This record gives sequence, structure tokens and C-alpha cells, in this order.
Amino acid sequence: MNYVDAVVLLAILQYLAFGLLVGRARGRYGIKAPAVTGSEPFERAYRVQMNTLELLVALIPGLYVAARYWPAPYVAAVGAIYLVGRVLYWRAYVTAPARRELGFRLSIGPVFVLALASLVPALMGKGTV
Amino acid sequence: MNYVDAVVLLAILQYLAFGLLVGRARGRYGIKAPAVTGSEPFERAYRVQMNTLELLVALIPGLYVAARYWPAPYVAAVGAIYLVGRVLYWRAYVTAPARRELGFRLSIGPVFVLALASLVPALMGKGTV
Amino acid sequence: MNYVDAVVLLAILQYLAFGLLVGRARGRYGIKAPAVTGSEPFERAYRVQMNTLELLVALIPGLYVAARYWPAPYVAAVGAIYLVGRVLYWRAYVTAPARRELGFRLSIGPVFVLALASLVPALMGKGTV
Repeated sequence: MNYVDAVVLLAILQYLAFGLLVGRARGRYGIKAPAVTGSEPFERAYRVQMNTLELLVALIPGLYVAARYWPAPYVAAVGAIYLVGRVLYWRAYVTAPARRELGFRLSIGPVFVLALASLVPALMGKGTV
Repeated sequence: MNYVDAVVLLAILQYLAFGLLVGRARGRYGIKAPAVTGSEPFERAYRVQMNTLELLVALIPGLYVAARYWPAPYVAAVGAIYLVGRVLYWRAYVTAPARRELGFRLSIGPVFVLALASLVPALMGKGTV
Repeated sequence: MNYVDAVVLLAILQYLAFGLLVGRARGRYGIKAPAVTGSEPFERAYRVQMNTLELLVALIPGLYVAARYWPAPYVAAVGAIYLVGRVLYWRAYVTAPARRELGFRLSIGPVFVLALASLVPALMGKGTV
């Protein structure tokens, strides 16, 4: 198994699924493009997708850079925490946005960890893997 | 020709061009930063850029991961469909947002195809190229 | 030092820092999720993060693709200009959005340069490094 590729692909598919939920909410709550406001449930679904986009853009390069300096299974495990965190975030946000904190921390935490864990070895020019 | 790199660069330049159109619309319709609403034509240009951003973040890693498992010309061909789909999407959105469906499908479809086509070989640990 | 990795990681961390400022502004100005409007200072912080996201999605692949065709220190230097441009953009946007032009140009310029500088060698299939 190519651990990092697998986690990246699952993160992409999870993100696309959140996007499909936005499309469905657009239909269900009658939000006509280009509007992105006007219905609280629609806005929640949209914010889940946007917040996931905000993290994904940093997560994916973070995973691949980290995999140059650390063993792939460890890097993929950090990415797996992100995947679980996003599920918790989504579940919380659509029911009670104020309770999204745990899922948010479990998904932004791995992004920070990946970037910080690679910074020193990258600055020192050491690839340990 | 490095097919995948070429498609990635064209996708980036296309996306930056959509961004320039948003900047131009900001001036033309008098939408002062930080506002992103207040003019339907501006909002349409902005949504084209945002929707392209939403796909690009998944398309680019999808292309590179797929290129590890499938021949580069095939992967690039899927990316080329995305590029055409985005042009159709943009043309439709700025004139009649309700008709953006075909362009949307032709551009999100390739993103799904790339991620799904790589998932099984990544999970099985096989790089065929 | 792995120049390109280092610049990518710094760009990710800078972007995450802008995201933390949005979270802080959300608390300080009482903007409850899923709203992203209702306070000018909040909207400025949010637009800095969003605009950085818009560039980052093109910058990171642009850096790695360019590093296949040009020497890494030059590529990283272009990325460093982006990092400085983003700081200027952020400083200007939160105080006087109308003055954000210089920082914007210094950060979108490198993104264009990276994509354009790689396009011809990618189309010709030449990796010079």
C-alpha cells in the first residue's frame, strides 16, 4: 500500500463529497447561483466545504513534503487523524456549528504538525527517508 | 513533452486568468474590497474563480498521483477534458448561470476520475508506470 | 538546505497564521459561524486568508514544477518574493485595503512567473535540472 497516496486520495474524495452536499443543499434550499447566502443549512454545508478546501490546500503538500523526511506510515497516520477530524467537523457543523471545535482541532492540528515537522529537516537539507 | 506538467501549468494559468477577470469586474462594477457581493456580474466572475479554485486543489494532486499509476498521456488527456470543461463553465456562468451544468460536469468529472482511478492501485501499492 | 521544500513550508505556515488571525477576528468582532460578513475588520482578515488561499493553490505546484526545469535556489528566491509580498499585502489590507496593490503584485507576480517559466520547457519536454 502506498500510504501517503492513499490518504491524499481519500482526502480528495472526502472533500469532493462535501462539495456534492453543497450542491444538494443548493437545490434543497433553493439557493440559486451565484448566491452563497440566504439559507442557514445551505451556508453550513458551504462552510464545511470551504473550510475543508482551506485545509486541503495545505494538507496535501504537507503530506508529500513530510514523506520526504519521515517514514510514510507515520505521515499517513497523521493524515488519517485529519480525515477523522473532518468527519467530526462536518457532523458537528451541520447540526450545531458552535460544537465544531473538536473536529476543527483534529483536522487543523495534523496540518500544522506536518508543516512544522518538516521545516527543520528541510532547512537542514536532510531527507531521512 | 512532459504531458502532466503541461496540463498542470495550463490549468494554473487558466485559473489565474479567471482571477484577473474578477479583478477587472471589481473595477468595472465598483465593488470595493473587502466586499465580494453587490453586483450580479461581479459575483458571477467571482464564483467562476472560486469554483475553479475548488476543483484545482483536487485536480493537481489528482493528476500527479494518477501519473504514478497510469501512463502520462492518458492522465493528461483527462486533464485536458477538465480544461475544456472550465472554458464551457466560464462561458455559461457569465451569460446564464443556470446553463453551467455541462461545463461543471466536464470539469468535476475528470477530478473524480483521477482520484478514483488511483485509489485501488494506491491501496494495492502498485505503481504501473 | 532543501530550498523549495523550505519555501513551501514557510508559505503553508504563513497561510495558516493568516487563518488563525481570521479565527481571532471571529471571536473579537462577534461573527458567529457560518456568517463571514457583518464586520469590516473581520472581513478584511478573512479576505487576506482567502486571497492567500487563492494564490497558494497555484504557487505550490508552480514551485515544484519549476524546480524540475530550473535550479532550486532560483525557484526558491521567486517563492521568497511571494512570502514578502504576502506580508505587505496583509499589513496593507488590515489597515487600508485600497493600498494592498503593491503586496498583491509582489505575491501574484511570482505565481505567474513560475507557471510561465515552466510552460515552454514542459511543452518541449526538457528538464534542465
